[in-house]
Amino acid sequence: MDVRACLFDVFGTVVDWRTSVSREFAQLAKSKGIRGVDPVEFAVEWRKLYHPSMEEVRSGRRPFTILDVLHRESLLKLLARYGLKDLSDVDIDELNRAWHRLDPWPDAVAGLTRLKRKFIIAPCSNGNIALMVEMAKRAGLPWDCILGAEIARAYKPTAETYLASCRALGLAPANVLMVAAHNPDLKAAKATGLATAFVARPREHGPGQVSDLEPDRSAVDIAAKDFVELAEKLGA
Amino acid sequence: MDVRACLFDVFGTVVDWRTSVSREFAQLAKSKGIRGVDPVEFAVEWRKLYHPSMEEVRSGRRPFTILDVLHRESLLKLLARYGLKDLSDVDIDELNRAWHRLDPWPDAVAGLTRLKRKFIIAPCSNGNIALMVEMAKRAGLPWDCILGAEIARAYKPTAETYLASCRALGLAPANVLMVAAHNPDLKAAKATGLATAFVARPREHGPGQVSDLEPDRSAVDIAAKDFVELAEKLGA
Repeated sequence: MDVRACLFDVFGTVVDWRTSVSREFAQLAKSKGIRGVDPVEFAVEWRKLYHPSMEEVRSGRRPFTILDVLHRESLLKLLARYGLKDLSDVDIDELNRAWHRLDPWPDAVAGLTRLKRKFIIAPCSNGNIALMVEMAKRAGLPWDCILGAEIARAYKPTAETYLASCRALGLAPANVLMVAAHNPDLKAAKATGLATAFVARPREHGPGQVSDLEPDRSAVDIAAKDFVELAEKLGA
Repeated sequence: MDVRACLFDVFGTVVDWRTSVSREFAQLAKSKGIRGVDPVEFAVEWRKLYHPSMEEVRSGRRPFTILDVLHRESLLKLLARYGLKDLSDVDIDELNRAWHRLDPWPDAVAGLTRLKRKFIIAPCSNGNIALMVEMAKRAGLPWDCILGAEIARAYKPTAETYLASCRALGLAPANVLMVAAHNPDLKAAKATGLATAFVARPREHGPGQVSDLEPDRSAVDIAAKDFVELAEKLGA
């Protein structure tokens, strides 16, 4: 392997969306006097609408639309389902930006900081640029640039998302390492010619997680328990 | 003014292209035994082909093409003009990447580091993403993300270059400050609705510089002598 750049999945791999979105919803619920909705369930139900919303774009039924917009549409559906009708547009926008305020896993900043010394590091996420920039500033994620869905105008696991990110760096896919906690993401990156690294995030979905506990060896070149171990394995 | 993000012109404003490209050409000339070509003149002549090459794209005669490619085409013309026929493709690629190895002005890193504490900071340059990322890693420019021509698929001073950069941040143009050492760039940004800051770079073109010594007050909201003073003026 001759790796020059590391691209990262973000939701679940770099940051803990479940805990953070739950916290954001709980804060809003408290300030608005909303009762009877479990914040973790709300976060999980919101996330369940993530892939179906992108599938509209991936299938070609809808032109490329950034994730902030898709998240907001999903949020409106969810608020209706829970009968939460009293939130203002400002409240809804603020809650939608919960996805800009996700906390990193404990090893993420230290690992990225080490990896950045040796490699170009960038997100290759389905999150849009504004979302990724605000998250990075708050969490201290030291990205060299923001790549991924918005510059590609395509959502992972569409090949173009990975390819456009490599092209933007002027690198062949073989010189780019895709890092993710999700085997399907790595499988698609591998099929597109990128090198792949699996970092397990066994609590992404909470204590009962059953998926992505182990790397799919057919799609994964390197496996590490966290970003610091990944940096070590890559000599960074 | 309610500034949330600062966008920067790069060639001339953040980095000293004339000195750096001269140095790069002088190094190559020495290693290849090239004599009789003044390195500063070579850098200046190369830069003279910059606007005409982009004008092909701005006029619509040519589809958007990244600056690394335009720079290389201009370099081939220049090498032919100087009768430098013995360089390999590898040598030419290496010399073309001189634009990835430009040194910052002495105040640039300190000023950007301060500005980054309060604002999103990003280049809004005609340079492509790979060029900007490699330059930033070498020079220590602490960008939050890379915006500008490649994400817009349009070259400044086309309005779309500024507008696409604002859109990527989810910000209205009025909440974005364009920083440049060049009045025409600021004039275009201002006409597009951005706030503007002029930072003088009176040695960009060497000791005899006659242009852009003073801000054009009709297009400029703030003027500063360097990036550190700009940070002070913006309370960063």
